[in-house]
Amino acid sequence: MDIVFSEKHGLQDGRAELVNGELKPCFEAPVRAEMVRAALASHDLGRFRDPDPLPEGALARIHDPAFLAFLEGAWDRWSAAGRTWDALPLNWRAKGMRFDRAPDSIDGQLSHYSFDAGTPITAGTWAAVTSSAAVALTGAGLVAGGAPVAFSLCRPPGHHAGTAFYGGYCFLNNAALAVQALRDAGAERVALLDVDYHHGNGSQEIFYGRDDVLFVSLHGDPMFEFPFFLGHADETGEGAGEGFNLNLPLPAGTGWPDYRTALEHGLARIRDFAPDAVVVSLGLDTFKADPISQFKLESESYPEMGGLVAGLGRPTLLVMEGGYAVDDLGLNTARFVEGFRQVVG
Amino acid sequence: MDIVFSEKHGLQDGRAELVNGELKPCFEAPVRAEMVRAALASHDLGRFRDPDPLPEGALARIHDPAFLAFLEGAWDRWSAAGRTWDALPLNWRAKGMRFDRAPDSIDGQLSHYSFDAGTPITAGTWAAVTSSAAVALTGAGLVAGGAPVAFSLCRPPGHHAGTAFYGGYCFLNNAALAVQALRDAGAERVALLDVDYHHGNGSQEIFYGRDDVLFVSLHGDPMFEFPFFLGHADETGEGAGEGFNLNLPLPAGTGWPDYRTALEHGLARIRDFAPDAVVVSLGLDTFKADPISQFKLESESYPEMGGLVAGLGRPTLLVMEGGYAVDDLGLNTARFVEGFRQVVG
Ligand SMILES: [Zn+2]
Ligand SMILES: [Zn+2]
Repeated sequence: MDIVFSEKHGLQDGRAELVNGELKPCFEAPVRAEMVRAALASHDLGRFRDPDPLPEGALARIHDPAFLAFLEGAWDRWSAAGRTWDALPLNWRAKGMRFDRAPDSIDGQLSHYSFDAGTPITAGTWAAVTSSAAVALTGAGLVAGGAPVAFSLCRPPGHHAGTAFYGGYCFLNNAALAVQALRDAGAERVALLDVDYHHGNGSQEIFYGRDDVLFVSLHGDPMFEFPFFLGHADETGEGAGEGFNLNLPLPAGTGWPDYRTALEHGLARIRDFAPDAVVVSLGLDTFKADPISQFKLESESYPEMGGLVAGLGRPTLLVMEGGYAVDDLGLNTARFVEGFRQVVG
Repeated sequence: MDIVFSEKHGLQDGRAELVNGELKPCFEAPVRAEMVRAALASHDLGRFRDPDPLPEGALARIHDPAFLAFLEGAWDRWSAAGRTWDALPLNWRAKGMRFDRAPDSIDGQLSHYSFDAGTPITAGTWAAVTSSAAVALTGAGLVAGGAPVAFSLCRPPGHHAGTAFYGGYCFLNNAALAVQALRDAGAERVALLDVDYHHGNGSQEIFYGRDDVLFVSLHGDPMFEFPFFLGHADETGEGAGEGFNLNLPLPAGTGWPDYRTALEHGLARIRDFAPDAVVVSLGLDTFKADPISQFKLESESYPEMGGLVAGLGRPTLLVMEGGYAVDDLGLNTARFVEGFRQVVG
């Protein structure tokens, strides 16, 4: 198995995120990717390789060009305005506020394009997020080229980022970019399975109107959990996409038995869809010790989870998403991959 | 002139707001009201009096009962969850997220009901904001009872708060509550003139569909200034309220001559409306030294502004809103009142 990885992830190293009313060190930190890299290496789970350069126009297959231009230039505009700390938005839209006019000041545009104050834009953000996107696209190329499985060790993560918004530690939607690349390489149907603890609201928004991409997400119920305003079971797609979005929100405290039941339900829907390829948004923040999550999966759950996903028997790209229990993150990721590879060598 | 004031404003004393990517001491601090009180007293501009108790049901004349219940209970729920700092929301809605389902966790509800991370809920918030509302309603009662002018020294301010949202340092819309109280006391038409530097998005939202309340606001253009997503010139009201909302957005750097021209335009519209009473959302953050604003009014501008507003010749309630250049805030407020009282003794 190839493991695509870039050192450039370390260029995203935010100073603080807003949590519990305070600015605290970012949970989404470089150490996360380093722990995963170390564990995959020590368990001898694959060959590491660098990403290929980002193909021209690849990001605009998913993201709005104005949003991309904003992300690329945001730090320079922010620092030109005399700010020395990471760029964070300060307000947002209440009910009745307008989505049809975008402000032109940097503060206004931070507010316009974001959905939280936990996702700082820094001097290195654009380099890091384009590198992370390249990691995903390189993995998609490997799967499109015939690999049964590949691992894109993306960081920053991506599944909260939408067509034209960032948040939830995510800027560009790596998994969605990979899905689109697989489609563009000839796969007629691609399934995107999101097992991160949080609802993949960006991925859902991107594919909501399409029937060529099935999105299946298991996550903490938005009635109690971030991102709060998307991820309910009654969101099933729209237009041509009706029936191609499956949300499986689960209660706080969910352990492996109930999680497995929901996962098997999601996998059955994917089998029914008969995809040519599968992309997995692989977040490990379902783990019981995760500091920002409320599920109760054990380390022993992840080999079984990996095996169940591998049982789909489709070419599969694993894309790294969240997971903030850094001491266990590498091991849990490795265990998922080991379980997967016991089914798909 | 009666000046209604309550010491309880001091119970709202937040520790920090999110600004320039950092948590900084709140600009909206108790010293503001103390400076205004001291200046109005030293200039001998009126008799101070306490507010009357809040009438039963008065808040629900403007605000959604579920929002009021949330505000009243938020601090207890937040602190019961183990949080020791002020309560701030952490995320919000991107385009496409749902307004039709409210989360039930305290974090989700903070996000649901707010529109910025600059408005901390503290142990004393509910007592302070209900006191501030009582200050406004007592002033409205004085005007309804025949006073040509009264001053409600409200703090926290209110004009950013809507039917069911808080933000911009505002929780309950004091001016809107006063407008409604004047209507309920028999005024057929009430004009709400907002001269705070920021658009009064809450007041606009509250009265947008009504023709018995004319809302006129002069403010920094939302293309560059907070709250960014409301306050454009093309927002003129809806339904029965069409034509009863006048926004006069002005560019950064606006000085008194251009401001006066816009104000005279707004006052002409109010004269045309022929209101039975006028409520003024009196923010002094148009001042050149205001730390969060970008207009260039001088201290000498405020007596003239007060005189122009008094020239409407209608019973008028002055309701304190913003103003963050604390060293000059008291004097500028006193000068506005002096200018007003040179026309209306
Ligand atoms: Zn997550
Ligand atoms: Zn203001």
